[in-house]
Amino acid sequence: MSPTTVALAELIAALGGDLLGGSDIRIARIAPLDEADGVSISFLANPRYQAQLGTTRAACVIVAPALAEAASARGAAIVTPDPYLYFARLTQWWAARARPAAVAGVHPSAVVSPDATLGPGVEVGPLAVIEAGAVIGEGARIGAHCIVERGAAVGAWTRLAPRVVLGHGCRIGARGIVHSGVVIGADGFGFAPSKDGYVKIEQLGAVTIGDDVEIGANTCIDRGALGDTVIQDGVKLDNLIQIAHNVQIGRHTAMAGCAAVAGSTRIGANCTIGGAANIIGHLTLVDGVHISAATTVTRSIHEPGVYSGPYPFEENSSWQKNAATLRQLHTLRERVRALEKK
Amino acid sequence: MSPTTVALAELIAALGGDLLGGSDIRIARIAPLDEADGVSISFLANPRYQAQLGTTRAACVIVAPALAEAASARGAAIVTPDPYLYFARLTQWWAARARPAAVAGVHPSAVVSPDATLGPGVEVGPLAVIEAGAVIGEGARIGAHCIVERGAAVGAWTRLAPRVVLGHGCRIGARGIVHSGVVIGADGFGFAPSKDGYVKIEQLGAVTIGDDVEIGANTCIDRGALGDTVIQDGVKLDNLIQIAHNVQIGRHTAMAGCAAVAGSTRIGANCTIGGAANIIGHLTLVDGVHISAATTVTRSIHEPGVYSGPYPFEENSSWQKNAATLRQLHTLRERVRALEKK
Amino acid sequence: MSPTTVALAELIAALGGDLLGGSDIRIARIAPLDEADGVSISFLANPRYQAQLGTTRAACVIVAPALAEAASARGAAIVTPDPYLYFARLTQWWAARARPAAVAGVHPSAVVSPDATLGPGVEVGPLAVIEAGAVIGEGARIGAHCIVERGAAVGAWTRLAPRVVLGHGCRIGARGIVHSGVVIGADGFGFAPSKDGYVKIEQLGAVTIGDDVEIGANTCIDRGALGDTVIQDGVKLDNLIQIAHNVQIGRHTAMAGCAAVAGSTRIGANCTIGGAANIIGHLTLVDGVHISAATTVTRSIHEPGVYSGPYPFEENSSWQKNAATLRQLHTLRERVRALEKK
Repeated sequence: MSPTTVALAELIAALGGDLLGGSDIRIARIAPLDEADGVSISFLANPRYQAQLGTTRAACVIVAPALAEAASARGAAIVTPDPYLYFARLTQWWAARARPAAVAGVHPSAVVSPDATLGPGVEVGPLAVIEAGAVIGEGARIGAHCIVERGAAVGAWTRLAPRVVLGHGCRIGARGIVHSGVVIGADGFGFAPSKDGYVKIEQLGAVTIGDDVEIGANTCIDRGALGDTVIQDGVKLDNLIQIAHNVQIGRHTAMAGCAAVAGSTRIGANCTIGGAANIIGHLTLVDGVHISAATTVTRSIHEPGVYSGPYPFEENSSWQKNAATLRQLHTLRERVRALEKK
Repeated sequence: MSPTTVALAELIAALGGDLLGGSDIRIARIAPLDEADGVSISFLANPRYQAQLGTTRAACVIVAPALAEAASARGAAIVTPDPYLYFARLTQWWAARARPAAVAGVHPSAVVSPDATLGPGVEVGPLAVIEAGAVIGEGARIGAHCIVERGAAVGAWTRLAPRVVLGHGCRIGARGIVHSGVVIGADGFGFAPSKDGYVKIEQLGAVTIGDDVEIGANTCIDRGALGDTVIQDGVKLDNLIQIAHNVQIGRHTAMAGCAAVAGSTRIGANCTIGGAANIIGHLTLVDGVHISAATTVTRSIHEPGVYSGPYPFEENSSWQKNAATLRQLHTLRERVRALEKK
Repeated sequence: MSPTTVALAELIAALGGDLLGGSDIRIARIAPLDEADGVSISFLANPRYQAQLGTTRAACVIVAPALAEAASARGAAIVTPDPYLYFARLTQWWAARARPAAVAGVHPSAVVSPDATLGPGVEVGPLAVIEAGAVIGEGARIGAHCIVERGAAVGAWTRLAPRVVLGHGCRIGARGIVHSGVVIGADGFGFAPSKDGYVKIEQLGAVTIGDDVEIGANTCIDRGALGDTVIQDGVKLDNLIQIAHNVQIGRHTAMAGCAAVAGSTRIGANCTIGGAANIIGHLTLVDGVHISAATTVTRSIHEPGVYSGPYPFEENSSWQKNAATLRQLHTLRERVRALEKK
């Protein structure tokens, strides 16, 4: 991925850390301990994998102080209090070297309203559409085929990957990343029944997204019915997630792929929602709630903690017997009760 | 959202209802009772919330006749038999005031085949593609980046939001709304096994969608294998829904986000399918069936009613114990049987 | 769908099989036995439906040798060892007749880098974007609004439907089909926690996809964190599927709609994953594993077989009683144990 190799000394100069040995060793790639070769840098974040220190072929390993001696006995080492965080910063530095520089300016094929406002250094990709009243902050990058509708706002240094829709009046803050296929600000799902079928409730709110938010591919965040749908600072959403109208998600909450949150539910800060989990509407989850993958949340959660609910899968013939019994579970309890009375 | 405020008298002139008091009061927004301020109009649809009449700051409240006295005692009121339906119509009227007028005509950046047929008043947005043989009805709006493939048809006054794909030969009726990212008419998932791997079954049908249908963002409706996939009049589909080939959905059925229906299943009219529910293939659900969120339907349903199946989530340590026991449930029943025999 | 009718003799000339009777019969469509009319060809693949031979109005039926006599007694028949496979090939031949010929060349509205490499016979649709360093193989078709990013590669004869994103450095092999809305190569979901919130782990890998792979509408396949996400030859993915970073899927495995696979999980060859099933991260499933629809896989599977886990749905009031009891299941087992001790 990188254009050339890099000396460990350069890396330390950029990212800090204590280098033990080999400042002129050159690194060509980042790799896990068990896949590393002699031009790889690797990291050891989980002490459980300490045994891999003895077998890895990595040229350099990033470790915590407690493992400095063990790591440097076998080759170069970078010592840092949080090796995983150091690794994250290393990937950022690495990617920045390989990424093409932003080309400030509007691609000639883009359709940009003269009534849109573009900050300094903004890049607008091929065939993007930016409507009247949209405001694009300094250094933001609008990918090919994106649509920023009327009155929408993109914060400074935020990147929209190719093919993102940011609906009219919706706002995303600074330093965000929005992946391809995301739809922000489609109508929430609201209808009044009538004798002639459903009558649409026009969705008059918008979507407000804070700073440092990342949103995965093909995820949808609907606009609010009256007020706004709100995603606070630092929230991370994976792919194919559904956020319904008027949902609120607190700071630094992360949700894995295919999760879904129904209308008007409020999720606190610092929560994690597992993949394919879903949360029904009009609930409240306090801060620090962790929902396991594939769990359906049907009640508000008032205490931090871990909550789970996937059905335990098993070999099919066994599942069939247990599932059949499950349909009689209440009766079974009655039978136990009757036995106890005897 | 609205360009200016509006007098209650104007609103009554447009939407009907009996106004008690304050015809010259001006309204700036629509809000729920508990968020309303002195320039808000609100509504009380559920008698459970009647207490909020005493605390809301709304300038005007829409109520049913039974609450006319209580509502007008505290300020202006609009009396109407179905306040929720009135609210829905109010949002439509409100949104129409704020929405930019359709700009009939084809944006110069769009790629429209000379062999496509566009009705009067059609608007085609920037960079849209309309292929040969496509037919676009009167007053329809085709958003930016939409693709209407060869031989597809869009009914009168239907709106495709930006970035919708309507596949070749597929049809949607009048007054529909299709949100961004929707894919109508991708191939259904059909393969014949062979010793060299799967052999594709070309999907020779199309998708037929009735009038007054709304389809949420990033939802997919596959074309039929031989006959068509059919969505009848008045159906409402939320975001990220999967409708497989040859599914049929009856009139006025509504499905919430992330629901999925496998191939050839037929769902009746006036059903509701909860979010993240899924229905396996080749089933029949009669009219008036209501499926709870996150339920997996594995058998046909021959009686109207409410059907449910989410696993009851709980605090993780408790879930672990119960889930482990669940794998022994059949054995547990045998043990109860043995005890009963004694 | 077909431009004209076709004589059975033509069909046999193209596809083989033994024709019994009626070589000059002309066919206008392919239809299931129970929907066929006098100009339809149909097939009987499942002996269970043999009774339909007596009632179908099809002009010709494709059957296995054992049914040759019964089928030809009622009209024309094509005899072939595997009628379903013959049907699949027939649909391909039929669709090829109706499909517009590829128009080699680049649509004038497409934005193609001069540093991209296009093989002979490549078709690039309207408003597509192909970046520098991309390589498009012979006869490949790139649909309208597709984006092939820098350094990505599309194999010979592969077709990207309109509006597909193939991310930088990602590769798909020959003869693939990718449906609209697919995003290949968005960032995997990786973050290191820090006291200031999540720190992004840049995703430095790519996606490698083999030959003869089909990918359904709006499906997402994320790029790997360090190494690549790998989809092997002959894999078939339905719509709205989530494949997380560094997942590996073996040859000829098929996954139905809305399935999801979390990071670093390895799925073997010749597996089937049912619709809405999900598999958590860092697991291994061996070859020949079949997962039922709506099953959550939480442990590695070391033996081929069928595994299941959907919660058995039922009428709501019954579900409520059973679900409430389920929360006490562990206690119920303790009570049975106590009874047994007496």
